[in-house]
Amino acid sequence: MSEKIRSYWGWGWEQALPDDKAKEVLAALISMSFKGLTLTHKPYPNIESVTLAPSQIHAPAQLEDIASSSIYDRASHTYGKSYLDIFKGFHGDFSNAPDLVVFPSNSDDIKAIYQWAQDCNIALVPYGGGTSVVQGTECYRGADRECTSEGYAGWVSLDMKKMDRVLEIDQTSKAALIQGGATGPVLQEQLAEHGLTLRHYPQSFEFSTLGGWVATRAGGHFATLYTHIDDLVESVTMLTPNSEIKTRRLPGSGAGPSPDRFCIGSEGSMGIITEAWIKVQTPPQFRSSLSARFKDYNQAVDAVRAISQAGLYPSNCRLLDGNEALLNGISMNGESIFLLAFESSDHDTTAWMERGVEIVSEFGGQLGRGPQYKNAGDRANREDESGSWRESFFAAPYRQSALVSMGMMADTFETAITWDKFHALHETVISRVQATMNELCGQGLISCRFTHVYPDGPAPYYTFIAPAIEGKEIENWQAIKKIAGDTLYEFGATITHHHAVGRMHKPWYKKQSPDAFSSVLKASKKQLDPKWILNPGVLIDAD
Amino acid sequence: MSEKIRSYWGWGWEQALPDDKAKEVLAALISMSFKGLTLTHKPYPNIESVTLAPSQIHAPAQLEDIASSSIYDRASHTYGKSYLDIFKGFHGDFSNAPDLVVFPSNSDDIKAIYQWAQDCNIALVPYGGGTSVVQGTECYRGADRECTSEGYAGWVSLDMKKMDRVLEIDQTSKAALIQGGATGPVLQEQLAEHGLTLRHYPQSFEFSTLGGWVATRAGGHFATLYTHIDDLVESVTMLTPNSEIKTRRLPGSGAGPSPDRFCIGSEGSMGIITEAWIKVQTPPQFRSSLSARFKDYNQAVDAVRAISQAGLYPSNCRLLDGNEALLNGISMNGESIFLLAFESSDHDTTAWMERGVEIVSEFGGQLGRGPQYKNAGDRANREDESGSWRESFFAAPYRQSALVSMGMMADTFETAITWDKFHALHETVISRVQATMNELCGQGLISCRFTHVYPDGPAPYYTFIAPAIEGKEIENWQAIKKIAGDTLYEFGATITHHHAVGRMHKPWYKKQSPDAFSSVLKASKKQLDPKWILNPGVLIDAD
Repeated sequence: MSEKIRSYWGWGWEQALPDDKAKEVLAALISMSFKGLTLTHKPYPNIESVTLAPSQIHAPAQLEDIASSSIYDRASHTYGKSYLDIFKGFHGDFSNAPDLVVFPSNSDDIKAIYQWAQDCNIALVPYGGGTSVVQGTECYRGADRECTSEGYAGWVSLDMKKMDRVLEIDQTSKAALIQGGATGPVLQEQLAEHGLTLRHYPQSFEFSTLGGWVATRAGGHFATLYTHIDDLVESVTMLTPNSEIKTRRLPGSGAGPSPDRFCIGSEGSMGIITEAWIKVQTPPQFRSSLSARFKDYNQAVDAVRAISQAGLYPSNCRLLDGNEALLNGISMNGESIFLLAFESSDHDTTAWMERGVEIVSEFGGQLGRGPQYKNAGDRANREDESGSWRESFFAAPYRQSALVSMGMMADTFETAITWDKFHALHETVISRVQATMNELCGQGLISCRFTHVYPDGPAPYYTFIAPAIEGKEIENWQAIKKIAGDTLYEFGATITHHHAVGRMHKPWYKKQSPDAFSSVLKASKKQLDPKWILNPGVLIDAD
Repeated sequence: MSEKIRSYWGWGWEQALPDDKAKEVLAALISMSFKGLTLTHKPYPNIESVTLAPSQIHAPAQLEDIASSSIYDRASHTYGKSYLDIFKGFHGDFSNAPDLVVFPSNSDDIKAIYQWAQDCNIALVPYGGGTSVVQGTECYRGADRECTSEGYAGWVSLDMKKMDRVLEIDQTSKAALIQGGATGPVLQEQLAEHGLTLRHYPQSFEFSTLGGWVATRAGGHFATLYTHIDDLVESVTMLTPNSEIKTRRLPGSGAGPSPDRFCIGSEGSMGIITEAWIKVQTPPQFRSSLSARFKDYNQAVDAVRAISQAGLYPSNCRLLDGNEALLNGISMNGESIFLLAFESSDHDTTAWMERGVEIVSEFGGQLGRGPQYKNAGDRANREDESGSWRESFFAAPYRQSALVSMGMMADTFETAITWDKFHALHETVISRVQATMNELCGQGLISCRFTHVYPDGPAPYYTFIAPAIEGKEIENWQAIKKIAGDTLYEFGATITHHHAVGRMHKPWYKKQSPDAFSSVLKASKKQLDPKWILNPGVLIDAD
């Protein structure tokens, strides 16, 4: 069996990208929603065809063993996984490739890399799973001019993959000390040996890392309560170019502004998350789930709001609008689909679900196959709509890469907003993005799901798909992202609920972030990264 | 009916301080736990007896109308409400009295005060309810030498009491925009007009303010989930000496390090919380509660841990050790008392409580009067141990003031720690504080309750009472606080879970806070308060 290889241009494992037959099925599904569209597809590209500009720098002797300048390493560390990234990668444009990729095994390696970067004016871009969809891990040479008058001598991608161990387990407190470079499956496997689990499943779970999650405030699969990794962090260790922030393991604290919350979301601009104590749990033994159909989307939204304010704290509480249900192959008739689930390692969740069913019914939802009450180990549970959804959820990024190869533009944006403003935002976003796609691409499809909900508002997540116009793919994609970002800003939403800011969202982040707080972050960066070597261009502008 | 007046030296309303008869009852209760103690008490002091040094400064014409230099205003704004504060106030030592007290009505007033303070080198101490137990609102002239070579020209207490309005209600999202100076009852009354409630009851609820809660990360009555005000903040407006940080109303966000979390806990060192959007709710309609007795404290702790890790999220989950039950008049036989309650505005909580009962029984707890299932409006519910506890909870600060008048030393300290380290910390704290009281005061009583619990650890809250030795009250109190703080630090706990840092806890906070993060806070303060006029001496050291 050949070793699995990460695609250097598209999502995930090269071997797991949809094959020709899968692409035909996908094409058929897409064709149902688009008029007169004939999808042809080019074959996936090959690393042999990639040429890169020569590296501008060489690793010093001390770091030679942990540095690589191979075409594969440089190309595969060039981009994240937005449409823009995949499009460029598919077409062999790796103009922002790092000069080198370094793979530290421990904090001493990182300190040596920092020293070298500071001495030689080298920009360092921390890299976890490379699943950023906001240009968070890109050697974005635009920042050269932005950050220093003379530009950097070179750009280096710092891949944390070798620091992937669960270092310590506290069974009593249910917490684990995990290194920043551990991916979802790798840390999950180590926790499982101790009968524990993290229950944090971003869509990027298979490849993204704990350190990346903490650095970007990743959203997990819990739809309520523990929505972001932020809520599961007990303490962090962040190594900065000139110091280390190592916080105490504390279940709660009232001692000054939270140092954890300063590190969480710093997106590699202040330091690298080398390890963190994370709250874990025993695997759920009880699970209940239902799916319901709503003819009226607004009523479905009201039902979700009622549930989010009921103090029931479901693990899943996802509302898919008609287009979202269609795109995921769950429902074809335009109805909204609502997925609700409760899980517990401690108690039967029947009472919780019974109240959920009452609320769903009060608001006119028609129950699908559920409610079903199952032991969580029972995979039969997954045969309902909720199961279809889950399969589709993790397959979606692979489908996006396939769509790009078929000449489609497909991407997402997401936000959070208070309930009072949701409807106005939603209707405007849908209509503006639809109009922009119609104008630029002739047609398009936009769908929405709630990934997370709070008592005071939802986190809507939008997917847009349109036939790309050859030669205008990037320009059109930028126009759509701009109308979306502008609308989110205009209606008081956030430019990101869990995809982070990176370089892509910075224009709106700068408007959304209070100026005085931006000045605080800049002063902080000067304190921790005085040579301004870490992830330049992300979050914070240089003077 | 005469208007209620805040005591200028002790807790709360002057009229509500225990009278002679109440003091006799208290003395009898105390005598049961102390050997050979004859408690005499001096009468409460009178404001007429207070003399203060003359004010060093005068308000400029523009601010004359909102400034006061009356003896009562200056004396009552001198201290918070720790033992140290009350002892000094009782004995007429107001050496740290502010030169002036100002009462802004709006942000423009605050800006004018900032301008004056920056122009004239005046230290400003933000003041909410004056209930700090950590010298957080004290004009701590020790900071004079610490912060500027020449010292400040004067110290001014900035009382937010006039900014006490609920400005806006969002019924759909269940949130309210509340001014920083609103006390618990004042904001609660305004919310009630809209059928809403905050459900955040710190022990200081009657006097402390929303802005004070946000600035100090106050703990509320929810024992799980929404333990700190942090968890209820949707957005904040913090006015700094040279700018304003006004964050977006967002149910959740992943856009960079949280600006809210930077303001929350800044303790008046960066700016003043002028208003905040806070998550509110409809009043609970369902409530279930029980009390249980445990012969074995360790088993009780295990029961609480199991409940905290069960995902049940009780509103009350308080464990009182034998001494705590004794001091609160709930139980005299040394058994630990466990109080568990669930509340909901949405659903009957029977299933939740049934599981709670199972866990309590599994760990050997003997049920008291509960479980009782009541409509939350039914006050009969309060006749059980949980009701006795609640009454005692809010009366405790009044009792402390009375005890000081009776020559007793009584104070508290609190922390949070992971479960794995709790027992070692607890045993050491108890034995060291007990030994110190024995050595210095001849005897003493130390008790513990859990105020809040998390899946990964409890927040233990300690009360210590000892006969004060005349002339050595402050010295002995300091010795006890020192052994407590040192022990918390040594065992990896936090110096405060919800009492804040202020000036009292700063020595331990400085050790606990990562150096690099302290440098970030200092850089931030220089950015927002370049003249270093706001609450000097709190949290951050000057160079």
